[in-house]
Amino acid sequence: MIAKNMEFLVKNSSAIRAMFEEGKKMAAEVGPENVFDFSLGNPNVPAPEEVGQAVRDLINEGDPVSLHGYMNNAGFEDVRQKVAENLNRRFGTSFAVRNILMTVGAAGGLNVILKALLDPGSEVLVFAPFFGEYRWYVQNHGGVLVTVPAELKKFQLDLESAEKLITEKTRAVILNNPNNPSGVVYSEETIRKLSDLLVRKEREFASSIYLISDEPYRELAYDGVEVPYLTKYYHNAVIGYSWSKSLSLPGERIGYLVLPDELDGAEEIQSAAVTANRILGFVNAPSLIQKVVGNCLDAEVNLAFYDQNRKALCEGLKECGFSFVKPEGAFYLWLKSPVEDEKAFVAAAKKYHILLVPGSSFACPGYVRIAYCVAYEKIQRSMDGFRKLAAEYGLC
Amino acid sequence: MIAKNMEFLVKNSSAIRAMFEEGKKMAAEVGPENVFDFSLGNPNVPAPEEVGQAVRDLINEGDPVSLHGYMNNAGFEDVRQKVAENLNRRFGTSFAVRNILMTVGAAGGLNVILKALLDPGSEVLVFAPFFGEYRWYVQNHGGVLVTVPAELKKFQLDLESAEKLITEKTRAVILNNPNNPSGVVYSEETIRKLSDLLVRKEREFASSIYLISDEPYRELAYDGVEVPYLTKYYHNAVIGYSWSKSLSLPGERIGYLVLPDELDGAEEIQSAAVTANRILGFVNAPSLIQKVVGNCLDAEVNLAFYDQNRKALCEGLKECGFSFVKPEGAFYLWLKSPVEDEKAFVAAAKKYHILLVPGSSFACPGYVRIAYCVAYEKIQRSMDGFRKLAAEYGLC
Repeated sequence: MIAKNMEFLVKNSSAIRAMFEEGKKMAAEVGPENVFDFSLGNPNVPAPEEVGQAVRDLINEGDPVSLHGYMNNAGFEDVRQKVAENLNRRFGTSFAVRNILMTVGAAGGLNVILKALLDPGSEVLVFAPFFGEYRWYVQNHGGVLVTVPAELKKFQLDLESAEKLITEKTRAVILNNPNNPSGVVYSEETIRKLSDLLVRKEREFASSIYLISDEPYRELAYDGVEVPYLTKYYHNAVIGYSWSKSLSLPGERIGYLVLPDELDGAEEIQSAAVTANRILGFVNAPSLIQKVVGNCLDAEVNLAFYDQNRKALCEGLKECGFSFVKPEGAFYLWLKSPVEDEKAFVAAAKKYHILLVPGSSFACPGYVRIAYCVAYEKIQRSMDGFRKLAAEYGLC
Repeated sequence: MIAKNMEFLVKNSSAIRAMFEEGKKMAAEVGPENVFDFSLGNPNVPAPEEVGQAVRDLINEGDPVSLHGYMNNAGFEDVRQKVAENLNRRFGTSFAVRNILMTVGAAGGLNVILKALLDPGSEVLVFAPFFGEYRWYVQNHGGVLVTVPAELKKFQLDLESAEKLITEKTRAVILNNPNNPSGVVYSEETIRKLSDLLVRKEREFASSIYLISDEPYRELAYDGVEVPYLTKYYHNAVIGYSWSKSLSLPGERIGYLVLPDELDGAEEIQSAAVTANRILGFVNAPSLIQKVVGNCLDAEVNLAFYDQNRKALCEGLKECGFSFVKPEGAFYLWLKSPVEDEKAFVAAAKKYHILLVPGSSFACPGYVRIAYCVAYEKIQRSMDGFRKLAAEYGLC
């Protein structure tokens, strides 16, 4: 009864629901406090107090007709102006109102730019490991996803493989920095090399290749690691952002796209993206929350919360004898499975009520993702299970 | 540089922008108080006080993590339960949580159900005059729009033409009740006949034909006219709703889909729709505002405001000698152009600073749409211009 291309997805979502049900059953058996669910990337830090205050002020002082009303499909001009100024101050860019398009989260933004750019059969390059939803976003708009295999040494980018996979049909490249699931930040060196490659390929094919940077984790970088701002390195870069993680507002669906004037066909793309925002059914980013984030651009991210978890997790797992990629950003740790079949490892972890996500879900088997956006105390108390799990595999 | 199928749309949106610029220029010349802009369907009644109070209460008492956090992609269970109970009480239905999917407005909901149902080449029937965006929503998901010509007597449905246009590829029919742009409410008799036709055609083709009812104007019906609740008349009916008009929250992007258990393949469709909500990039309806509408289901719509405008406009236009369809719902009046080329009429109206939308935009030339969701005083003061316009065409 449903669309053919939805059938796989619906089956898949039953699998996720089954996993969720299993977790609930586990919680009922041993108590929720003894289930260590590292499977979900859901911030559990509350939104900063500035958010609540901004909502109150707007409701008390704002005009309800304009506060909850339609605006230009690109978003409120004053909010777009504030976002542009904030970026310019922080990154030395020179964006104006026309370069900012307010979106229904980063997921909305990605769909908008893909709708604006892709023709049937257009190819979109992604680097493994990658957030699995990109596959569906590309498919939504008739594109074909092309996966660059993971660079297994440092989980930066395998640009040699990428070079072979870029064709005249390559319309876009999606990058996620800091990366979900690896927790890696792509370095300035990596970004420069990627930019060089894309410029070279644009010349070779006389084409425009748009680099779409998905950056919901931009503010979550530790130890002073810098996350390069892509538009400074590549002329055809589009940035997708969301306040889901930085202000802990994932349910509110609020983010933006940066569409620089340096893009090939900038004006046309800006116009197409605004139109795509409308016709995809988003219409505009939710109005009240647009104004709220506009008033909270300088609110501090509670980085210390995640950093404490990160350090405890790294130390604990190291002691257990696990190998993992050093997490520099986001709130994910990318653990090497002690056995090739990481799904077996994920299954074994369940015995200790530890829930992990297999790397296959991110096109990178042999690894598992640990989302450490949980209570600190959970990390500490999970270590006993991790130790037993490590012992089972002869790691300690 | 942009997707081929976006080129027409981008050109078209420049035309709209040009119109908007023209309006601004007009306002600068004669003063905004002397421009009678009847072109936009933007409610200008403020949201009821309950909305502001619900926001305050939630921010003051709610837990910010869950208030702004992810929930099931279908929406908060408690809100879905309240919506189901509210519908059951008002319409004698028997919906449960699983039948309600919270969406990013009605536009989001329509895209979700079309994504869930359409295969490439699936046909979707619409009845002229119709909201022009339906064309793009259907195209987004690979469908083909099939237009049933308008029934010009009463602007109910031309079911004889529809009968000829339904094929084995017809997957869905979109109905908009009350109708934008005609202001007509499709009667119970019309709905019964439509239902009979669809049942007959389902048998003929051994197919399932889903009737998608787009109902953002449901609460805006005048003189006690009843808007039939579609699920009571047809087994394969899906309802799309939005609080944009009833609570004056168009910018907030909040609505729902009703996916009854009576649908062929109900469970599969419910699951596909939730998945579509996720992968289209909506992810979920905005969280805070979900809770807000859940607490405002019994807030009164300010129908009197629109009704006063409707009456003044009807009386005034009648006196001028114009012909129009009796507006029973929404906030639109559907005026017969005194000349066949309604675009010439729209142009002539501009001389009197009256802005109208030509019927061609709704696949129904020869008519123009007047959106009367404006200040009452504007209606009164526009009458002088309407009179002169009528005189120009020899109507009075």
